[in-house]
Amino acid sequence: MEQPDPTIHQPVRLKIMAALKPLPAGEALEFVRLKAVVGATEGNLGAHITTLEQAGYVGVEKDFVGKRPRTRVSMTPQGRRAFDAYVGYLQDIIGAAG
Amino acid sequence: MEQPDPTIHQPVRLKIMAALKPLPAGEALEFVRLKAVVGATEGNLGAHITTLEQAGYVGVEKDFVGKRPRTRVSMTPQGRRAFDAYVGYLQDIIGAAG
Repeated sequence: MEQPDPTIHQPVRLKIMAALKPLPAGEALEFVRLKAVVGATEGNLGAHITTLEQAGYVGVEKDFVGKRPRTRVSMTPQGRRAFDAYVGYLQDIIGAAG
Repeated sequence: MEQPDPTIHQPVRLKIMAALKPLPAGEALEFVRLKAVVGATEGNLGAHITTLEQAGYVGVEKDFVGKRPRTRVSMTPQGRRAFDAYVGYLQDIIGAAG
């Protein structure tokens, strides 16, 4: 791997993936919760989630709780593999830096 | 720190800093050696070194060995502090991802 996966290396997307990774497989995080953790604007977060979704790294579910629309985001198995590879790449570089 | 230091987070600059960090303080790496380690083109590497130099993170020395021009690059104390903070930030994010 010559460079870190650009889909994950972008700072906001890195935070999104790091926030989703600890969740058990298939479990999702509500958009509003992710927004608080990542500290991005709604539009910015939405755009980066779409990028991750198009890459196959996250899944997005939209439903209603009563009358309130709800959006939940979860990491896909492919996303987990990509994030593990990304972390391994960074640890190689940073590890070598001692 | 809300996001990783963009001066370091850029993939080529990250590799440059990681290559320089293990060197004893003040010791420098020749441009051609850095080029091999980082795997960037001469122009690309030169541009990123200039960015790091302008940020105060690296120092650049140019001299001659006989008739051959030589360029050497070393990390500044400020660069070491910035890189340590950058690594700490990433480890927090990646560490939290478990």
